[in-house]
This record gives sequence, structure tokens and C-alpha cells, in this order.
Amino acid sequence: MNLSIIRYILGRVLQFLGGFLILPVIVSLIYKEYNTGLIFLAIAVASFILGSVSSFFKPKNNAFYAREGFVTVSLSWILLSLVGAVPFVLTGEIPHITDAVFETVSGFTTTGASILSDVESMSQTAMFWRCFTNWIGGMGVLVFIMAILPLSGSYNMHLMRAESTGPSVGKLVPRVKNTAKILYGIYLGLTLVLIVSYMCAGMKLYDALIISFSTMGTGGFANLNASLGGYSHGAQVVSIIFMILCGINFNAYFLIISRKPGEFFKIEEVRWYLIILFLAAAAITVQIRGSYASLYSAAHDATFQVVSIMTTTGFSVTDFDTWPMFSKTILLMLMVIGGCAGSTSGGIKVSRLLILFRTLGKEASHLTHPRSVKKMRLNGQTVVEETSKSVYSFLIAYVVVLMVSVLIVSADGFDFTTSFTSVLSMLGNVGPGLSVVGPAGNYSGFSDLSKITLLLDMLAGRLEIFPMMVLFYFGTWKRG
Amino acid sequence: MNLSIIRYILGRVLQFLGGFLILPVIVSLIYKEYNTGLIFLAIAVASFILGSVSSFFKPKNNAFYAREGFVTVSLSWILLSLVGAVPFVLTGEIPHITDAVFETVSGFTTTGASILSDVESMSQTAMFWRCFTNWIGGMGVLVFIMAILPLSGSYNMHLMRAESTGPSVGKLVPRVKNTAKILYGIYLGLTLVLIVSYMCAGMKLYDALIISFSTMGTGGFANLNASLGGYSHGAQVVSIIFMILCGINFNAYFLIISRKPGEFFKIEEVRWYLIILFLAAAAITVQIRGSYASLYSAAHDATFQVVSIMTTTGFSVTDFDTWPMFSKTILLMLMVIGGCAGSTSGGIKVSRLLILFRTLGKEASHLTHPRSVKKMRLNGQTVVEETSKSVYSFLIAYVVVLMVSVLIVSADGFDFTTSFTSVLSMLGNVGPGLSVVGPAGNYSGFSDLSKITLLLDMLAGRLEIFPMMVLFYFGTWKRG
Repeated sequence: MNLSIIRYILGRVLQFLGGFLILPVIVSLIYKEYNTGLIFLAIAVASFILGSVSSFFKPKNNAFYAREGFVTVSLSWILLSLVGAVPFVLTGEIPHITDAVFETVSGFTTTGASILSDVESMSQTAMFWRCFTNWIGGMGVLVFIMAILPLSGSYNMHLMRAESTGPSVGKLVPRVKNTAKILYGIYLGLTLVLIVSYMCAGMKLYDALIISFSTMGTGGFANLNASLGGYSHGAQVVSIIFMILCGINFNAYFLIISRKPGEFFKIEEVRWYLIILFLAAAAITVQIRGSYASLYSAAHDATFQVVSIMTTTGFSVTDFDTWPMFSKTILLMLMVIGGCAGSTSGGIKVSRLLILFRTLGKEASHLTHPRSVKKMRLNGQTVVEETSKSVYSFLIAYVVVLMVSVLIVSADGFDFTTSFTSVLSMLGNVGPGLSVVGPAGNYSGFSDLSKITLLLDMLAGRLEIFPMMVLFYFGTWKRG
Repeated sequence: MNLSIIRYILGRVLQFLGGFLILPVIVSLIYKEYNTGLIFLAIAVASFILGSVSSFFKPKNNAFYAREGFVTVSLSWILLSLVGAVPFVLTGEIPHITDAVFETVSGFTTTGASILSDVESMSQTAMFWRCFTNWIGGMGVLVFIMAILPLSGSYNMHLMRAESTGPSVGKLVPRVKNTAKILYGIYLGLTLVLIVSYMCAGMKLYDALIISFSTMGTGGFANLNASLGGYSHGAQVVSIIFMILCGINFNAYFLIISRKPGEFFKIEEVRWYLIILFLAAAAITVQIRGSYASLYSAAHDATFQVVSIMTTTGFSVTDFDTWPMFSKTILLMLMVIGGCAGSTSGGIKVSRLLILFRTLGKEASHLTHPRSVKKMRLNGQTVVEETSKSVYSFLIAYVVVLMVSVLIVSADGFDFTTSFTSVLSMLGNVGPGLSVVGPAGNYSGFSDLSKITLLLDMLAGRLEIFPMMVLFYFGTWKRG
């Protein structure tokens, strides 16, 4: 293990984190929350200095392989979460350390689960930081660093692969650095359009800004207890559109920009993603129609929640925990599936689902016609053995992590629905679950042990398990 | 698809079913339930004649491949369940057809889930048949036919593979027919020992007989509403011992009989099975200790339920739905795991669990040291690629079937715990779940659609999904 290079990159992460923390300081000046701003400033400076010291000496050995990539990404995210939680503790907004780390992990992993029972009592400065973590986490901090810093090409790909979502990571352009730039360019561009759209729908600049952060990262943090239910109907419609957009593979937008819309429509994953969204929304609309004044309002709420859950954003406009069981079960399925690979959403991703289904078809075909050899295709390309194997391992790891986590969380004595759906929601980076952790509830009632389990689940979900698995794998740290 | 050979074998199945149905007729004579006995006799005769007609013409074409094996086994089990349900309907013991089929499928698949709210009101004849289905289903009806009839060797292996449990089926001796004989010999021998043991523990002959059927098949049907809770403490201890024995790979007993105890202890699966049983029982004992008068009685109940659930028998001595959530969650995990491959128990089997865990270890090792090539070993032998792939496909299919079934069942509007644990219990062939379908409840409250879904889950669970998948796979029925 090349520890010096990991130290170097972690130093860079701290420097960037210091930079990010300046934004809430600016907010504190506008809202005259000077004390809070001072604390943020101190932490920003400390983080930057610590990072500069750590990355002062360039590593002599540039050997950087997949395992260094996984370990670096895992440690970066853990570091981000720990340091990012400090302002909440020091300002006294979330005094309990586990809670503060939970909230920060929930932010960076774009989960949006909260231990706060009254978010409206938070200062504007801390609220800005809370929502901004959703934005950073969405596209990934290492991808951001890559886009800006001149890191040498040898390890870019390993970092990209470990931090990006989906079963396989494609480079848009030959150089990874430029891919990162393009991705963040699209991300930033869409964010700006979204801010303007929200403002057109009647939001104030500050609200538009922070809700845009949460929407773009498909995070789900909001500054009102009623979540998006506290904003106008128009804002909710804007939110639906952009959540859908952010659940789509960002590579797709590159294809459109580079005038290859033909290839865009070849992406089966996007097609299935939209089909599932439509079917789920239609099924729920039919079921909840009776308790709404009009078909339109039922369809609006159903569509909003379906989109919010499948893109793993977690905003709510209504307490869907009061919906019929069938509708709630559909939402649970969507939590597991999530959006497209290469998007800011969580879940196992539609492309993995397609690979899993096609594996079953292949197995059935193999069992009935043992000599036939079928190749699996996805998005017009052959799925290589390596990719499908990693999808199987992912599923296994997902199920194992799910079972172990539910077991630990169950010790808190909540009903089964609560322990099961809370873990499901954390692994999918969604936010709300059912019962105690439904849209009207929060995660404050869990024990510290459960909160730590759930925050590890969030990290495992965001990084798609393998980086965390490698970090905790004994063999990683053996010499050789 | 060689339909004539399938017709031939299904005919044989009906003949044997006719033979099995003679046993309850004898019971009816002893208990003077002549009307009921007459109905059973009529169905036995009808089944035998129908079977004889169907198997009168030997198939000209003996081509029999894996797909014929899967289809034959699936259809045999469906046929068994449909015809086996007729007596319940005609005697009026279970007048509703869906309910009768549910109960019969539950019997043959050794699930033990019931739609009866008062089993004690059933006639002795029908009760005998109900419990006897547990015994037949345990080791499998086709394995039984193979052991007795001179079926030609070419298709024995395909049938054995499709009906037996576990990721790979080993032949004990070169000829499959003899393997089947040995397995049924051990099964019958253990059953006789068990009947005597139950009688020594104070049971009457009839009770000992039918409870032995349910115990050996790890089925779980009992003739008292209190399940095994209605029998003596000694009988419960006997039950614990034999449930544990029936959750072990029957090949292991062959090794002992053939004086190779050394090889017996090499079977890692059995070791892990016992370790998991012990740990689970210990953990639950500690948690429920407070509500019991003595440590012994807490340990007794905990051990009984852990063994009953992990071997997927489903007997109960107490209403474990009132236990703390942590204990209940452990039981849910055990439902998923189940016993050993080649036993009469359900679940995904301990050997598949070991293969899945080792796959994760292999993946972690591959991610950190891409050039290292590790072979996976189980029970002292290398796991071939084919086997591990089929385990992955199994897991995928399991998760998909679970999700789809929960979705369908949720439409009945029960709480999530009920819909989720009922499907989990059916897929594992356990019997009870939690909440509405807990040990004190039953499955009568579900809609017909849910009951059909759940009975298909039981069949999928018993036959380990692939045979059913092949049956419903479009490509199976294409020419060529």
C-alpha cells in the first residue's frame, strides 16, 4: 500500500474542504450570523492548513493501483464527514457528535436523512453548509479535485472508478481529467438553470440556492420541516423535472451536447428508468385517487414522491407513510432500484437491475439449451464478464450488508418495518423510510450504535460498497 | 421438448400418489371415519387409473435433457399439489379450492403454513394425509419413484438434480438409482427411530406417527393448535434433536454408515450449520431470559424455536412474535439461511451462504491484488465456476421473486411486516412469519391472489427456483 500518496491526496481533500467551508462564511456575513461565521472560518482555515501540511511533500513513489484508489476514496469520504461535522458541533447546532457526523454523512452521501426534529431552528449559515454537502457529494469530491488540480493521469482512473456510481465507468474523452471537467461543467450548468427556475417559481434566492443544491445532488435536505411541501406548486413541478434529470447518467448529456442525440436514445438504461418512473407513478395515482380532490392533485403527489424516491432524493410533499401498503411497497422497491449509473442518485442503479434480469434470462436459456452461448448486451454494447461478475458481487455484498445492518438496528427495539426500511433507505441514499423513519419522522430516536451502523450504510451505499469493503478487508493491509 | 416422456413420468407420479392415498384410507378404518375414508379411496383409485392410462404407452423417444428434468419435476409437484388437494375439498374439511391447494402445497413443500384457524377440528384421516404430505415432500417424490421403479439411467440424474436441494448434487454411489435407495433407506430408518422416541416421550402411536412425518420432512404441520407446545417437554427435546438431524445433508449419514466418519467431520457446511444454530440460540436465550422463570426454560424455548426456524420446520412451543425485535430479526435471518444442502430443510442453504461469503472474500482479494487467482473451496473440494455461477443466479432469482411477491401480497393491505415475512417464510418453506402470520396466526386472511402467489413461492422455494423458472421461461417451449 502506497501510504504517502494517500496522505498526499487526503491533504488535498482537506484543502478543498477548507475552500468549500468559505461559502457558509460568506452566507454568515449576509445574514449577520457573525459568531457562527467565525467558527466556520476557523475550521476552514484549520482544515486548509492541515491539508497543506499533509500535502506539502509530494509522494516519491507514484505507484497507484485499484486498491489505493478504493482506500483513498473511502478515507476521503470518512475524513470529509468527520471534519465537515465539526462546525455543527462547535456552533452548538447539533451538539452531540454522533448526530453531527450522521447529519454530515447523510449530506455528503446525498441521503438527506436527518436527526433534526425541527430543521427550521437552524441558522442560515449552518443550513447552507448542510445543503451544500448534498451538492458536493452528488458528483463527488475527488472528481471535483481531479477536474481542477493537475493530478497525474496514472491514478485518476482508479479514483474515478471508485467514486462514480454504476457498474462500469466510461470515459467521455480520452483523458480522465477532461471527463471530470465536462461532468462538473454539466453539473454546474444544470445547477444554475435550476436556481433560476426555482426563483421563477417564486423562491427567494437563498431558498432557491440551497434547495437547488439538494435537488442536484439528489440529496433531499430542505430548510422547512414540511420539506418541499412548504414551497409553491410550481417549485414542486420544477423539482420533479430536475430530480428526473439528475437521476439520468450524466454521460447522456454529454452525448446531447456533442450532438449525438441518436446515441442518447440508444441508452436502454434511461428508457427503463423512465418506464419504471411512469408505471410506478401511474399505479400509485390510481391507488390514492380516492383520498384526493382531483385526479391531477393525486397524480402530482404520486409523481413527486415516485420521482423523489427513485432518484433517491427524499424530498416529500406529503406523508406517504399514510398511503396504502401497496403504494408504499412500490416506493420501497424504487428505493432499492435507484436511478441510472453515473447519475447523482443512489440505489443499485437501473443498469445493474437490467444486468441482473438478463443474467436470469441467460441462466434460463443455459439450463434449457446448455450448448447455447449468449452474450449479454446493455446500451448496445456487450457486457464483459468482469462487469457482470462485479454486479453479482455487488448484489451479494448488498444483501449481506442489509441483513447485518437490520440485525444491529433491530436491537433498538423499533418495529420491523422501521429497522428494515431505515437500512434500505440508508443503503439507497434515499432519506425517509416507513413507520418511525417515515417522511414525518426522523432518525433521532436510534441509539449511537444504530446511528453509526446507518451512517456506514450510507457511505457503503454512496460508494457502492466495494471501496468500504476493501478498506475493511484484512488482505488490503498485508504487505506485498 | 420430449412431451411423451413427461407424460409417462407424470403418469407414474399419479400412480404413486394413488398408492400414498391408501394410507389415510387405512387410518379411516381404524378411526371408523368411513365416509371420509371412502372419499380418499375413490380419489386413490381414480389417481391410480389415470396414472396407469397416462403411463401405459412407453415413450418411443428416450431423449431426456436438463430442461425435460426441470419441467418434469415442476409439473410433478404441481400435479401432486392439485390432486393431493382434492380429498380436502371433497370431504369438506377445506371446502374452498384455493385454500385446499394452499394447504397441500404447504404440505408437499414441507412449509407447514396453514389456512386453518382450528386444526383440531379436522378428522384423523385428513390430518394423517396432511402430515404425510410433509414426509413425502421432504425427500422428494421423484427420488422415491426412482428408488423403486426401473427408470432408465439416462434421465435419473436430471430428475435428481432438479428435485434435490443445494447448489450441487453428489451421487453417493455410481448409480443414481442406488443413491436414491440409500437416501430413502436412511430417511425411513430415521423416521422409525423417531416414532419410537416420540412414543417413549409419552406420545400415542397416531400422534407419534404424524408428528414424525412433519419432523422428518422439516414440514411443521401438527395436529394441535398449540403445535409442539401441546406435547410433553420430552417430546419437544426429541423434536429438537431430530430437527437438527434432518437439517443436515443426508450424504453425511451415508459417510457415517460407510464408516468414513473422518470425512463427515470435513463437511464445513455441517460445522457452520451447528455454529449458527448455537450462536443464535445463545443470543436469543440471553435476550428472553428475563421473562422466563429459569435459564433452562429460556434456553429450551430459544433452542427449540431457533432449530425449528433454521431447519425451516416451523413448529412452535411459544408465540415468538412476542419476543424482542432483535430475537425476531435473528429468526428472520435463519429463515433465509435454512439448513444444509441435501437435507429436507428449505432456505438458501448454508453451503450457498458459504459460497456467497467466499465470493466476497475473493472479490476483495481480486480488487486489491488483481493478478492473484484464488480458487474457492468448500467441504474440502474446489467449487467449480458452474456451481458458483448457479449460486449467483439463485440469489438474483431469490431477490427478484421476493420483491415481486411482496409487492403482490402488499395489495392485501396488511402491514409491511406481514407481507414481507410471509413471503420470506414461504420462500424458505418455514411456515410462520411475524405479525398476522406469526405462530399464533395463520394465512386464512389473504386474498386468493396472494394465496396463489404464496403457494408459487413455496414451490419455488422447495424446488430452488430454477425448475419453476424453466417451466415459465418462454424459450423452454420453443421448438429446437
